[in-house]
Amino acid sequence: MFELLATDPSSSARRGRLTTPHGVIETPIFMPVGTQATVKAVHPDELRSLNAQIILGNTYHLWVRPGTEIIGAAGGLHKFMNWDRPILTDSGGYQVFSLAKLRKLKEEGCYFNNHVDGTPMFLGPETAMEIQATLGSDIAMLFDECTPWPCEHAPAKESLELTLRWARRCRDWIDKHQPQTGGGAQLHFGIVQGSTYEDLRQHSARELVAMDFSGYAIGGLSVGEPEEDMMRIAEWTCPLLPEHKARYAMGLGTPPQMVELIARGIDMFDCVLPTRLARNGTAYTHEGTLNLRNNKFAKDFRPLAEDTHPLCQGFSRAYIRHLINTQEVLGLRLISLHNLHFYLSLASRARSAIEQGCFADFRAEVVARYQTRPETLDS
Amino acid sequence: MFELLATDPSSSARRGRLTTPHGVIETPIFMPVGTQATVKAVHPDELRSLNAQIILGNTYHLWVRPGTEIIGAAGGLHKFMNWDRPILTDSGGYQVFSLAKLRKLKEEGCYFNNHVDGTPMFLGPETAMEIQATLGSDIAMLFDECTPWPCEHAPAKESLELTLRWARRCRDWIDKHQPQTGGGAQLHFGIVQGSTYEDLRQHSARELVAMDFSGYAIGGLSVGEPEEDMMRIAEWTCPLLPEHKARYAMGLGTPPQMVELIARGIDMFDCVLPTRLARNGTAYTHEGTLNLRNNKFAKDFRPLAEDTHPLCQGFSRAYIRHLINTQEVLGLRLISLHNLHFYLSLASRARSAIEQGCFADFRAEVVARYQTRPETLDS
Ligand SMILES: [Zn+2]
Ligand SMILES: [Zn+2]
Repeated sequence: MFELLATDPSSSARRGRLTTPHGVIETPIFMPVGTQATVKAVHPDELRSLNAQIILGNTYHLWVRPGTEIIGAAGGLHKFMNWDRPILTDSGGYQVFSLAKLRKLKEEGCYFNNHVDGTPMFLGPETAMEIQATLGSDIAMLFDECTPWPCEHAPAKESLELTLRWARRCRDWIDKHQPQTGGGAQLHFGIVQGSTYEDLRQHSARELVAMDFSGYAIGGLSVGEPEEDMMRIAEWTCPLLPEHKARYAMGLGTPPQMVELIARGIDMFDCVLPTRLARNGTAYTHEGTLNLRNNKFAKDFRPLAEDTHPLCQGFSRAYIRHLINTQEVLGLRLISLHNLHFYLSLASRARSAIEQGCFADFRAEVVARYQTRPETLDS
Repeated sequence: MFELLATDPSSSARRGRLTTPHGVIETPIFMPVGTQATVKAVHPDELRSLNAQIILGNTYHLWVRPGTEIIGAAGGLHKFMNWDRPILTDSGGYQVFSLAKLRKLKEEGCYFNNHVDGTPMFLGPETAMEIQATLGSDIAMLFDECTPWPCEHAPAKESLELTLRWARRCRDWIDKHQPQTGGGAQLHFGIVQGSTYEDLRQHSARELVAMDFSGYAIGGLSVGEPEEDMMRIAEWTCPLLPEHKARYAMGLGTPPQMVELIARGIDMFDCVLPTRLARNGTAYTHEGTLNLRNNKFAKDFRPLAEDTHPLCQGFSRAYIRHLINTQEVLGLRLISLHNLHFYLSLASRARSAIEQGCFADFRAEVVARYQTRPETLDS
């Protein structure tokens, strides 16, 4: 189901094609995040016009509101949110560990009170798989514990072993229930953990590969670790993953980080920054981010960037600044669209570069032009 | 510039065509309100796809933020907000009298501190005309005092006489400066005041008609007066206004009120309700409004209404309810679009009915089907 179309001679970058029940995804790909059954402030028609191939949904949020009973009655998440292209759902674990209250982690899973109305809930590997089966996502993620950073070797190993036992239980659940969506078999991705330790990352990768999942993710990235660690983790892990399965780096990152991870063999990315930064008026450009709240844009009648999407054409920086200053929704909309277009185009340009054998130049240019500013990392 | 295309034999309803510098407006027409240089939550492309012919801008808000210096430097409001169809601007008076602080009303105009940062400002007839000339709207409204309700005859008369002296000064300013926009002459509408008193309304209409403006509005409506007063005021005023000039009822109203005022000879309407009610999850239907926060919609997978715009097709009541409950912008967007489509279609159906000689049936049907609920009036 993952076809390797081209590889880059200068790096481990790959051009691939992942087939899912709701359609084909050309990789490398960026996936807009649709936490609560909507990519924030964006209409599905706009996502289509941005050529978004796949979006991400958050199992925890959807389970809490509106709940699987309602989404199930709607015929699944695709029908509920009026999106007919592929969807990837996370397992809910990350949000349970970061948002929920009164958490008690046990061998069987995690007991907690949800962050909205405090209802006691339980999430474990089987429940996480069952919820994602009801949502009917094309790609479901295994239930794992995301190890915090920094973390000593012993607790990191302990956490990883729990994640591996959970993976085994997910594997059993999948084999027993064979969940279907859109007329095909749901895909399931295992998640490599192991903090910043080479031996643990490699142990994790080998054990998951032995369990034979549809694809593999690298988890526990972008949790505060230095960028060199992030890159090293990808370098340790990717060579151990099967060539003919997709690889997904979860929750990343800045534009140069995305390109550097593509160079290390990653195929799929998701990141909340394009829509989250839009809320405080931050727009992406090839040179770095612009904060439109800055007074210097008050009479700047140029467009946000040299290449903009048709939906943000005709709107000046001065106008969008006015919309952000007056808290008008259109400002958030225009920057969200622009930022998603920026990330989706970056992925599209990476695909072309690999196909045309000029990925090394593309990578050097993106990294050299882009100035990482604190606002990109702080949010 | 206002062409009368057809009249209804059963009432005073008219089918007309108003030519402005940025284009032609088919009447009767509903004008979406774009307070701060944006119709709340709506993209100009969407307004075009809704067949919005003209939108309204609020002079006071635009003057406070971003200010006329910035909009002037952008080349006017049309260019600033990327909207090339007609714009009507109010005079700013209504917001000064309702929002601004430390107001002092004098013969020359009104001194006040703005509601955003408390800056002392002054708005009088000449300033109001000058600001609207800089904005470059197609239709500028005269500076008037909106008489509160209820109001005794003596203060209502005093207020009206001040409004008439201000109208004279606006007339002089217009004759002296001859403001242009989009390659043509800006239009100016006088505003009939006089509270709920027949003699004052008629005096106001006669005086304004003698000053020869491009069109006429009825002001001081929907300020709390009973609906019968609203209708009586239109009945007293319209017959005194020139047949070949457009008539605009400011800030109105519910769907049946709009149809009843069309029947009394009104051509133009604006109302914040479609976008304002969207914020609390209220959607218009032919039978009245639905509040989607209501639990009964949790598993209602039907569309908002039987006839929806393409942009809100495919989204169920249950889904939009979820978006509103989770404060997702897409919920606001979909209901805003739906509600604007409802009002714009109502105006469009009124136009067809007058053309086809079946306005009496249309009027009876709209009024009979629509149940006015408190949430429509309270907001
Ligand atoms: Zn753009
Ligand atoms: Zn609709």
